[in-house]
Amino acid sequence: MSATDLKHHCGLFGIFGHPDAVQLTYLGLYAQQHRGQESAGICSGPPGGRIVRHADTGLVTSVFNPTLLEKLRNPVAVGHVRYSTTGSCQSANCQPLLVTCALGQVAVAHNGNLINAALLRDQCEQQGAIFSTTSDTEVIVHLLAKPSRLERMDHVVQTLGLLQGAYSLLIMFPDRIVAARDPFGLRPLLLGRMDNGAVVVASETTALDIVDAEFWREVEPGEAVIISQEGVTSKWIVPRGNVKPAYCIFELVYFADPASNIFGENVHDVRRKMGMRLAEEAPVDADQVVPVPNCARCAALGYSQASGIPYGRAFTVSHYAGRSFILPDQPARDLAVKMKLNVIKSTVRGRRLIVVEDSVVRGTTTRGKIGALRKAGAKEVHLRVASPPIRYPCYFGIDFPDPETLIANNRSVEEIREYLGVDSLHYLSLEGMLNCVKHPPDHYCTACFSGHYPMDVSHPVSKLAFEAK
Amino acid sequence: MSATDLKHHCGLFGIFGHPDAVQLTYLGLYAQQHRGQESAGICSGPPGGRIVRHADTGLVTSVFNPTLLEKLRNPVAVGHVRYSTTGSCQSANCQPLLVTCALGQVAVAHNGNLINAALLRDQCEQQGAIFSTTSDTEVIVHLLAKPSRLERMDHVVQTLGLLQGAYSLLIMFPDRIVAARDPFGLRPLLLGRMDNGAVVVASETTALDIVDAEFWREVEPGEAVIISQEGVTSKWIVPRGNVKPAYCIFELVYFADPASNIFGENVHDVRRKMGMRLAEEAPVDADQVVPVPNCARCAALGYSQASGIPYGRAFTVSHYAGRSFILPDQPARDLAVKMKLNVIKSTVRGRRLIVVEDSVVRGTTTRGKIGALRKAGAKEVHLRVASPPIRYPCYFGIDFPDPETLIANNRSVEEIREYLGVDSLHYLSLEGMLNCVKHPPDHYCTACFSGHYPMDVSHPVSKLAFEAK
Amino acid sequence: MSATDLKHHCGLFGIFGHPDAVQLTYLGLYAQQHRGQESAGICSGPPGGRIVRHADTGLVTSVFNPTLLEKLRNPVAVGHVRYSTTGSCQSANCQPLLVTCALGQVAVAHNGNLINAALLRDQCEQQGAIFSTTSDTEVIVHLLAKPSRLERMDHVVQTLGLLQGAYSLLIMFPDRIVAARDPFGLRPLLLGRMDNGAVVVASETTALDIVDAEFWREVEPGEAVIISQEGVTSKWIVPRGNVKPAYCIFELVYFADPASNIFGENVHDVRRKMGMRLAEEAPVDADQVVPVPNCARCAALGYSQASGIPYGRAFTVSHYAGRSFILPDQPARDLAVKMKLNVIKSTVRGRRLIVVEDSVVRGTTTRGKIGALRKAGAKEVHLRVASPPIRYPCYFGIDFPDPETLIANNRSVEEIREYLGVDSLHYLSLEGMLNCVKHPPDHYCTACFSGHYPMDVSHPVSKLAFEAK
Amino acid sequence: MSATDLKHHCGLFGIFGHPDAVQLTYLGLYAQQHRGQESAGICSGPPGGRIVRHADTGLVTSVFNPTLLEKLRNPVAVGHVRYSTTGSCQSANCQPLLVTCALGQVAVAHNGNLINAALLRDQCEQQGAIFSTTSDTEVIVHLLAKPSRLERMDHVVQTLGLLQGAYSLLIMFPDRIVAARDPFGLRPLLLGRMDNGAVVVASETTALDIVDAEFWREVEPGEAVIISQEGVTSKWIVPRGNVKPAYCIFELVYFADPASNIFGENVHDVRRKMGMRLAEEAPVDADQVVPVPNCARCAALGYSQASGIPYGRAFTVSHYAGRSFILPDQPARDLAVKMKLNVIKSTVRGRRLIVVEDSVVRGTTTRGKIGALRKAGAKEVHLRVASPPIRYPCYFGIDFPDPETLIANNRSVEEIREYLGVDSLHYLSLEGMLNCVKHPPDHYCTACFSGHYPMDVSHPVSKLAFEAK
Repeated sequence: MSATDLKHHCGLFGIFGHPDAVQLTYLGLYAQQHRGQESAGICSGPPGGRIVRHADTGLVTSVFNPTLLEKLRNPVAVGHVRYSTTGSCQSANCQPLLVTCALGQVAVAHNGNLINAALLRDQCEQQGAIFSTTSDTEVIVHLLAKPSRLERMDHVVQTLGLLQGAYSLLIMFPDRIVAARDPFGLRPLLLGRMDNGAVVVASETTALDIVDAEFWREVEPGEAVIISQEGVTSKWIVPRGNVKPAYCIFELVYFADPASNIFGENVHDVRRKMGMRLAEEAPVDADQVVPVPNCARCAALGYSQASGIPYGRAFTVSHYAGRSFILPDQPARDLAVKMKLNVIKSTVRGRRLIVVEDSVVRGTTTRGKIGALRKAGAKEVHLRVASPPIRYPCYFGIDFPDPETLIANNRSVEEIREYLGVDSLHYLSLEGMLNCVKHPPDHYCTACFSGHYPMDVSHPVSKLAFEAK
Repeated sequence: MSATDLKHHCGLFGIFGHPDAVQLTYLGLYAQQHRGQESAGICSGPPGGRIVRHADTGLVTSVFNPTLLEKLRNPVAVGHVRYSTTGSCQSANCQPLLVTCALGQVAVAHNGNLINAALLRDQCEQQGAIFSTTSDTEVIVHLLAKPSRLERMDHVVQTLGLLQGAYSLLIMFPDRIVAARDPFGLRPLLLGRMDNGAVVVASETTALDIVDAEFWREVEPGEAVIISQEGVTSKWIVPRGNVKPAYCIFELVYFADPASNIFGENVHDVRRKMGMRLAEEAPVDADQVVPVPNCARCAALGYSQASGIPYGRAFTVSHYAGRSFILPDQPARDLAVKMKLNVIKSTVRGRRLIVVEDSVVRGTTTRGKIGALRKAGAKEVHLRVASPPIRYPCYFGIDFPDPETLIANNRSVEEIREYLGVDSLHYLSLEGMLNCVKHPPDHYCTACFSGHYPMDVSHPVSKLAFEAK
Repeated sequence: MSATDLKHHCGLFGIFGHPDAVQLTYLGLYAQQHRGQESAGICSGPPGGRIVRHADTGLVTSVFNPTLLEKLRNPVAVGHVRYSTTGSCQSANCQPLLVTCALGQVAVAHNGNLINAALLRDQCEQQGAIFSTTSDTEVIVHLLAKPSRLERMDHVVQTLGLLQGAYSLLIMFPDRIVAARDPFGLRPLLLGRMDNGAVVVASETTALDIVDAEFWREVEPGEAVIISQEGVTSKWIVPRGNVKPAYCIFELVYFADPASNIFGENVHDVRRKMGMRLAEEAPVDADQVVPVPNCARCAALGYSQASGIPYGRAFTVSHYAGRSFILPDQPARDLAVKMKLNVIKSTVRGRRLIVVEDSVVRGTTTRGKIGALRKAGAKEVHLRVASPPIRYPCYFGIDFPDPETLIANNRSVEEIREYLGVDSLHYLSLEGMLNCVKHPPDHYCTACFSGHYPMDVSHPVSKLAFEAK
Repeated sequence: MSATDLKHHCGLFGIFGHPDAVQLTYLGLYAQQHRGQESAGICSGPPGGRIVRHADTGLVTSVFNPTLLEKLRNPVAVGHVRYSTTGSCQSANCQPLLVTCALGQVAVAHNGNLINAALLRDQCEQQGAIFSTTSDTEVIVHLLAKPSRLERMDHVVQTLGLLQGAYSLLIMFPDRIVAARDPFGLRPLLLGRMDNGAVVVASETTALDIVDAEFWREVEPGEAVIISQEGVTSKWIVPRGNVKPAYCIFELVYFADPASNIFGENVHDVRRKMGMRLAEEAPVDADQVVPVPNCARCAALGYSQASGIPYGRAFTVSHYAGRSFILPDQPARDLAVKMKLNVIKSTVRGRRLIVVEDSVVRGTTTRGKIGALRKAGAKEVHLRVASPPIRYPCYFGIDFPDPETLIANNRSVEEIREYLGVDSLHYLSLEGMLNCVKHPPDHYCTACFSGHYPMDVSHPVSKLAFEAK
């Protein structure tokens, strides 16, 4: 799948107790830039002091500069990179949100998607709340701001109990950071420690690596970890025994960086295993295994290793791809493929190729790449996809396009094969995929592939629900 | 007084029922740019439809472009130019604010300053409200959003009754615009009509002129004018008989454009009369009356006319003055004066000059200009200021600097004369000033000159009150 | 005349022997920004060292910043602001030009226009020269670069002798600045001295004032002043006795800053006298004399003083006029006037006005302003223009539009009066104008008014001659 | 080698006779962006008409936009991407150069480096030439512009005969394009044809592929191909029999895109063979072969295939690497590596790795990468470099750093091994390398590895020779 087919969602980073917390958060966000390219933001403050914020649309490296980072310098910080799942791309929707309320200042950064946001928002509005963004994260902030007789952290945890859907959250108060994960653990969230004792929270371990933090443990599904000068304590959003994980398997298939460990294992290893399994499920006699750049390299390696068919290189990738430039009056999609990839004709000409993809969403760019290989003289092209067909919407933060634009929607594998113009096509089976991961099959959410959702999704909201209101 | 000594505050513009409402609002804001240069914004919508918004920091001409205006195209619009009086210059503080609440969408544009904003905000927060800006306008929005059993417009008017201080307000709902003015009428707000029947609201008549609207009438102090497809109706925030005007006399002295009519009379005429009165109060034998550019031309003309001493020109003004560029290692203030003004030496050399100023705040740039005249060989320099010394803070929206930096704070006129380096110095008297305006003396707020405030200001808030919290 | 009717041409500044030469050149260019707004550039170097350069399109304050100025820091500098008279607005056409040739590095800054540039360029090309800009200044550089057995300064002066037309030139070598003026002295060029002995060259005295330099003397027509560590010496381009001045009278009428002294007298004084003379030549019974902003204030003051009719103010000027923004589907010209000027209706309504203009080129914006006064209720409008009708092209650096777009081209004064919609119209007579200046009438070039050119112009080149080639 | 270690030099593209010539040139430059990232430019014109130009510093996609391309629309175009080999990065140095001279308009785009540029420039200057850039390409233009009695194309070819060094050149006249290559053929240059008969010239075949042009043939060393409406003809710069090729082997080792064919063979194939040969020359017992991203993938594949040791993946690459952002007070080089690469720890931990590099210049980033693998727990790290040590400067357009910063300068392989911190280190031998390419060994320039230069380089010029003058 091409990086433009499916934009990633959000990445979180937080750190408590380091003189360079803001600079480290910048690096931690940078290392998770693949999780969100639309906006970036950091809130920081001294313990007990005033929280300040900078956030804007754009990449981490364009939103921040050394002067800004210096202005934000503080020992406590939380940051966010975002691709909007609810709420369109607007400056006001950048996260972390920072507000003042009866609790004082609160900053909130959210990865995931609430399925009862519209209901909660309506309740808040009826009680006098005003909403200035279209993000479901603002609902969380309003709930936190409600008057309560509970002790502050109990109030926070009770409030989280009202949320349904996927959420990995960083909630920053002037004196503490709360790192919370929904009871299904749909999105990753993990803790690290630095040499000086500072505690780090991040979505993926690549963010720990870049700041030289040591991986400590995952925030557990249903857990709210409270980090303050008193140390690290936990509270539970639902009784600990009631937690039943439903880790998003698509994080392993496509989203996370191969160098990361999430859900307890290395992403590259999982993908390589999926490629190996795919070779077992769907062998084919051919000359060369080639990955579709850039994502499918891990699975292609696995396929090659399991099949013994040499791993090769069919494409070079342009490092200078312009994002938005489209030439008028040209078959734009083909050109878009050409501007990203150059076919190595001498590798391809007259060869029987096994092309490995991690997943196929719309199929349009995959088709373009296959066409380029055909044009360069490939003798046979066999497509192997290291995950099952995507047929169902995700309500938990992955922004698949409309179901009717999914290539596997209402199409048989044979129809897809024909559409893509390949000699043979095989998808990895659901069991095959689940065989390659560490936890038991029922500990994953496979809804996009299987249609089995871990919770009732009969009243979900569309991404732009609040804007259309 | 130089334009950089005292930044202006805010300008409002609204229009109901014109196909080019947004384009006209752009022009109306442009014609009131002198009232606020930090940000500009427009909200627009079709009657009963969805309100959209664009606002950003910068001048009207840089915030908007034809493409953006076209995107906002709608028959109902409200706009705002802003210089922050509470709340620092941030993108989030740009107005109009646009929120969604139980009333649906509400956009609010505010000119003025509330003196009970901190109290009201605290109450809102205790009831669960979250604040995402540092502007006192957000308090108004929260009050409007509170649950109420009243009919919507009654609820709005009742809410306005809770506000203390200065407010000229445009409140836009999808089906109507409410134009409201505090019971003292501290800031101007007036109505116009266009040929096609569209109703226009603006702070000053220059905004009516540029869109070819005809002046209709002022929004009266304490009045809330409701403009909808059903026509124009009024409600009263306080019983109409209880209204006692306190028009801000500083609008006439300095703020408003000389081409405007506000508070029932032309600003240029008032200033010219002040200059004439000044000539009567403080005559001096001299060769030439020269204004300090650009503001004091009206008063200088009046002085010349009343005294019979020829009006002359001592300075040319740079049209290309860079705003932010400061040369290191140079006496910055002197250079700043030089970069804005060139002295016409041949006018000045050997002459006895009467220099007319509209008002003096800090005195630093006035001093620079006097110094330049001295250096160019002026024989005598007599400074005449067409308003009394400014000695007291304003709590109603004029952003005077800290009292201790006011030149007239704890200084006698003689001490000021010496500091400025002039041969003689006279300020217009308070009665003299009040003699030049149309309404009775007690219908004006003269607090910055006299210390007499039209309402209790024992608990006012500083500009950055909410930020320091 | 409005500032957009006629763009100014070029301004020069140079300084030899001051540690802050570059910073001072920045200020000197800034003070002459009215002479050219399209590009700005500075070349600097240590005496005998390497010349460096920065130049770009835009205003002085946007082309330079403190970091750039610091990088250029050197004790010798020449600078240029430009409005292109030959050569369109391109980055490559920015001046000073800096090249390397057999003479070493040479930087050239030019104000004026050569009438034999095409011929000289053709000769150079036949001898192997390549041209990379479309500016006539490049011709000068090529001539300077030609092999020569003469001593360097003799070669320079001999080369200048080949040029026909208007030129005030700064030629910078690593060890000296040559400041040269054509034998007619068409454009101003003058010398100043600073306290530390540094020698300054500038087009107008405002540039001396801003850097605290004392006016020394004009560079004389036909003189080449050579400034080096050895001091200041002169050479003559034509025998000194053959010099017959033809100072451009339009510099006095419109171009130069009123605060400047050029051609031996103060510009404001000249314009005021022209206004006085105009009052004598064309009196009219009226209530008020009002200038058309901003340029005609000097002449209007003179008219008022001579006539005894009070000086008034009919317009306020927007300080925030956006340059490029044009609203679609609107009568653009009228709106353009409205966006720059607000009419003070109370001054105008029912009054008989004498409107004073310095000059009228196309007449379109003047017409717009007159229309605005009419609409505001002026009873009578009498237009008085403080210079004669412009009827002939200028070949010496003033960029009048095509003759057919000049309002006075083939139109009688009565026809112009009718077109502009005024009750009466008078232009200052040619003798009247020449009566107000210091030197004898035949020492001025009045070609644009009279058609009498100081040299043969039968083969002049159009502005874009080299581009169309 | 990392892409920042050694910037590429220049890429050329030209096309004669296509209605979309400019748009195609944009694409052709884009596909050769890896050859130069500092500036991009296009000149275009109608046959016999006026040549227009746009060029600026920056990437192709930022220098051009659809509006600009449309403005340049013409059936003949030449383009250039540049990394400066002589002349620093300045707007004025962008290519193609476009000048006017006795021949009319001439545009020149150059890839290579002249070794007698200083001498030729000096001669030109003595004859009156002026130089406004610091690029050696301007020398070529001056020589072309010299008066000549020869027929134009003979004059061009004769002029090319004066140049010594490396040059692939596109010279555009209004009616023709001349594509010339120095007699050693140091830089690639090749011809393609489009369906409509248009003739294309490019540095690499990737540029033909993106515009759907078919490869025709190489421009031969010493050949000047003339493309006009009359068709394609050739002239010879030196007698054809005297040509002795010296193709730059570093183009094959590192510069060209693996998808390209240059010097008669595919780049990927050559590199794969070099990796295979390396495996034969320097086998080692290990668990995994991993490439250093991004360049060494071809060679690593070859090593894996020849050795039978599995190909693996040790790094993921950030797609969002910010170019210029450097954090203060941090070990910048290590951070720079971390910001580009994430180590896949689970691949690396406890493994014996063979790391394959294409070449090593300074060694600093290679060392950083090795360090990252060590830190991630690699048991052994064996470095294999698929080319010999770089020990000598290049005078023909490859911008190696100063010899003293080359890691192989005055260091034995053992010393380098120690510096890089690897368990073993082997470079491919010179014969080994030459064994992998198509032409006889003496048809390549291997000077950077061997010190044997194809021509006398006793008087070469440094990159900034003309600037320091």
